[in-house]
Amino acid sequence: MKNQAESNSSATRILSQTAEVDAASVQPFPASQKIFVAGSQADIRVPMREISLDDTPTDFGGEVNAPVRVYDTSGPYTDPAVDIDVRRGLPDVRSAWIEARADTELLGANSSGFTRQRLDDAKLAHLRFDHARAPRRARAGANVTQMHYARKGIITPEMEFIAIRENMSLQQARELGVLDQQHPGDAFGAAIPEEITPEFVRQEVARGRAIIPANINHPELEPMIIGRNFLVKINGNIGNSALGSSIEEEVEKLTWGTRWGADTVMDLSTGKNIHETREWIIRNAHVPIGTVPIYQALEKVGGVAEDLTWDIFRDTLIEQAEQGVDYFTIHAGVLLRYVPLTAKRVTGIVSRGGSIMAKWCLAHHRESFLYTHFEDICDIMKAYDVSFSLGDGLRPGAIADANDEAQFGELETLGELTKIAWKHDVQTMIEGPGHVPMHLIKENMDKQLRECGEAPFYTLGPLTTDIAPGYDHITSGIGAAMIGWYGCAMLCYVTPKEHLGLPNKEDVKEGIITYKIAAHAADLAKGHPGAQLRDNALSKARFEFRWEDQFNLGLDPDTARAYHDETLPKESAKVA
Amino acid sequence: MKNQAESNSSATRILSQTAEVDAASVQPFPASQKIFVAGSQADIRVPMREISLDDTPTDFGGEVNAPVRVYDTSGPYTDPAVDIDVRRGLPDVRSAWIEARADTELLGANSSGFTRQRLDDAKLAHLRFDHARAPRRARAGANVTQMHYARKGIITPEMEFIAIRENMSLQQARELGVLDQQHPGDAFGAAIPEEITPEFVRQEVARGRAIIPANINHPELEPMIIGRNFLVKINGNIGNSALGSSIEEEVEKLTWGTRWGADTVMDLSTGKNIHETREWIIRNAHVPIGTVPIYQALEKVGGVAEDLTWDIFRDTLIEQAEQGVDYFTIHAGVLLRYVPLTAKRVTGIVSRGGSIMAKWCLAHHRESFLYTHFEDICDIMKAYDVSFSLGDGLRPGAIADANDEAQFGELETLGELTKIAWKHDVQTMIEGPGHVPMHLIKENMDKQLRECGEAPFYTLGPLTTDIAPGYDHITSGIGAAMIGWYGCAMLCYVTPKEHLGLPNKEDVKEGIITYKIAAHAADLAKGHPGAQLRDNALSKARFEFRWEDQFNLGLDPDTARAYHDETLPKESAKVA
Repeated sequence: MKNQAESNSSATRILSQTAEVDAASVQPFPASQKIFVAGSQADIRVPMREISLDDTPTDFGGEVNAPVRVYDTSGPYTDPAVDIDVRRGLPDVRSAWIEARADTELLGANSSGFTRQRLDDAKLAHLRFDHARAPRRARAGANVTQMHYARKGIITPEMEFIAIRENMSLQQARELGVLDQQHPGDAFGAAIPEEITPEFVRQEVARGRAIIPANINHPELEPMIIGRNFLVKINGNIGNSALGSSIEEEVEKLTWGTRWGADTVMDLSTGKNIHETREWIIRNAHVPIGTVPIYQALEKVGGVAEDLTWDIFRDTLIEQAEQGVDYFTIHAGVLLRYVPLTAKRVTGIVSRGGSIMAKWCLAHHRESFLYTHFEDICDIMKAYDVSFSLGDGLRPGAIADANDEAQFGELETLGELTKIAWKHDVQTMIEGPGHVPMHLIKENMDKQLRECGEAPFYTLGPLTTDIAPGYDHITSGIGAAMIGWYGCAMLCYVTPKEHLGLPNKEDVKEGIITYKIAAHAADLAKGHPGAQLRDNALSKARFEFRWEDQFNLGLDPDTARAYHDETLPKESAKVA
Repeated sequence: MKNQAESNSSATRILSQTAEVDAASVQPFPASQKIFVAGSQADIRVPMREISLDDTPTDFGGEVNAPVRVYDTSGPYTDPAVDIDVRRGLPDVRSAWIEARADTELLGANSSGFTRQRLDDAKLAHLRFDHARAPRRARAGANVTQMHYARKGIITPEMEFIAIRENMSLQQARELGVLDQQHPGDAFGAAIPEEITPEFVRQEVARGRAIIPANINHPELEPMIIGRNFLVKINGNIGNSALGSSIEEEVEKLTWGTRWGADTVMDLSTGKNIHETREWIIRNAHVPIGTVPIYQALEKVGGVAEDLTWDIFRDTLIEQAEQGVDYFTIHAGVLLRYVPLTAKRVTGIVSRGGSIMAKWCLAHHRESFLYTHFEDICDIMKAYDVSFSLGDGLRPGAIADANDEAQFGELETLGELTKIAWKHDVQTMIEGPGHVPMHLIKENMDKQLRECGEAPFYTLGPLTTDIAPGYDHITSGIGAAMIGWYGCAMLCYVTPKEHLGLPNKEDVKEGIITYKIAAHAADLAKGHPGAQLRDNALSKARFEFRWEDQFNLGLDPDTARAYHDETLPKESAKVA
């Protein structure tokens, strides 16, 4: 395991010999054990965390309290049976499933010119991950997306894995006979079923109402689903920048963020060695990884947006698809006619991808290659099963700019693009704002559902006021909880450093926990069956003064215990 | 000013000779000045904080940016013209107004036996505040509540002060010609006017839709209003406990909490020397102070709820009223028939006041003296203008218990009591939950408005999930923002230590800022005229890279600046 001195050592050391996992990310959770629920075949093993509880004290009734299983995003890092070695990467979960489908082939060499160039560059040896996988691609003419299988009526192992995972709380509540100990929800027309079955997963994916981001080049992935009729998910962002942070630090943020609950992680790197950084991230990622390929493409043209070309972008997509990126943010909805609509805004265009594309469109006086080549992009996506995350390049960056013509015009275009992607059976979700006052949030959700045929919505916050820099995890956590309730499928976290600087590890955790709260509050309000089980167990523990159980059932046992011990340090106070 | 060594020194030092104001609470805010807007008479001077802004950089247009005035709860502590001395207490704001009404008299001695006993106790000399005011009471037969004046058609100086204060942003927006640069809100039937006039304040108070907590024995108070058609307010709790914290620390929490935005402060002390602690607090408080008198009454009977009597409680009310407490939480709605309804709950009765009264009722097999003597209590309230905060003793302590029969039964009783209080022209607000999932929050608000004739609602959170101990400022900030939007008039803050321990100064600040966010997000969503001015100014500063303005316009300039400097420490990065 890494110690601080090592991590601060010179950049010239050879990463493939020295990189270490972050020690804090591999600690077991208190009173918890990793369990696996088996599917219909031996290699479907769905991880869960089971929290053991004390018996109720005699004067409260003395009953036994059943352990509580919680959704586990921490991956093999908290599995004592797995020997973690970030230099080798994670165990393979999905290769056998992918191979069994017999519609892909291993390539002899990488298809991306840029990738080959990086591999040939001796100066990069010290940064390189040593156990890159041979790239895999759909056989000629094949479509390897989960949506394609779903539409053909095939239930994949990924779908079955997800059904078991999503059904966990409902299953527990049923076994314990407490399914009725929950408020009926109000899900605004969502179609949450009595039980999450593999067939239901298939139907939702077929219909485009949910996506399973799962690139065939990312077999380390533990499948998860993003859709309105499933548990609300959260994304955590990582990524280096021109200002620094090392590859090892990015892997550390990945393991740390997923430990606390990130369901997917976006690598937003814009600094040096983006290619190598990503390789390390994906090989050590048990969650889907998303990227914004235009960021890297821009680095390739020296940061000059006008110099971007379809060829460079196309090669970047293939480069990243063959590394195993699971979803791409693509700002294909930034059309020429929308750009002038942002001129009167308070904050213009704040999306980095959006402003890159707007600059390109204005410089060339034509629609972007993301838009004109959209079907070509679909062809790439379906050859690797990369999902679209259609970017909202014109999202509002201020309360004043919420729900304006530019934003909603782009959203309508994203709806059109969704239909084109679906024509190719390419899985698609839609990104959303941003900064929106509370009373205008629902309009966003409703319009997105309508325009995009219920494709999953994936929003950043939204921030419900602009006046609290330093606390935008909270201004946005409010909006995130609400839009999650209204039907948003995934919430992109915001850290306390938003607008101010780059998040450190503590900021990442603070953002993740805030968003877990928002997502779970949304699950409760929607009435997701079994969602209230954990609340009930924790509240019962609280009422019975079972302090340890209260800590351990919480999202962050460490902080709860530390806060308690700060003012009531004695064990006697904990059992009083 | 105090240093840490002093504050930790022996308890035997003489407070009236040694107490010092918290140094951090009297620092000026950056780029800010305290200004006063004059009313119709010379002694109506409404404090505001005016934040100066830089000009827009030339390449963004080079225009001058008008300073922004923000609602200022920090009181004389941030006024460089005031010589703060916590041993003497704050300057007198209201005595001349009270005297001019000629309906009160100064008493020769305190009416409370307990007060006289404390004053006679030589052992308490070292704790005593040296400049207690002579108690004032309504003349025989007089009613001195703001509601009484309002109903007689009288606009008091307090009402005019409040009108100027509440109209501040609207006035600015109008002067700048930017009143239309705000989204129309959705206020769910609230009656927010085009302009907040003194006459509007009077009407709202007369109708019971707003209260002005302003005890005639608290002349240091800067008047403020709590009501659905005014800015949403927040309360911060302080108070010692059996576990410690000194009088000086409580005064420090008061000045610190109001610095960051607390509109009122509740002193929830339950430890030793509650009487003396409160005297120090009130004499140094420019905001309304609320208490839960049953806490002190319980201390007087050695903590045995069954031993409480009307006489002890009555004397406690008078004791506190003559010190200047502005509102009393009174759990008069805990009726015998509601108590069994809590038996099947996950967390039973979690309100401390509620459980004290439930215990009393069950032990005596009769309705509590709070209920049976309610009109007697009204007589005390109107003799000092203490406002009711009718306590929700049966509020849910868990998601599972939200909106149940016990809670709503009590709320109906609080509605009946409101009408009785109004018969006496006693100002009244209603306390609300607690723990409520998002989709059940609006039902609380709607029912409260209906049952209580639109009397102001004052809620704790509500917490929208139970699974995040250590982060309940966030679980509850979500619910607080929503219920504020729906019509709640004041939000009682929750700190990160909720359920776990006693908040320290940092926790107090974190809770206050979170609740300022919730309250402001609610003001935006309701469309309170001018509320968006600060958001717009901050976002414009952000867009123009005016970093200092962005920090200074935020709720917490210190944290924003520190976060920024942590990753981008150089001045060059701030002006890039």
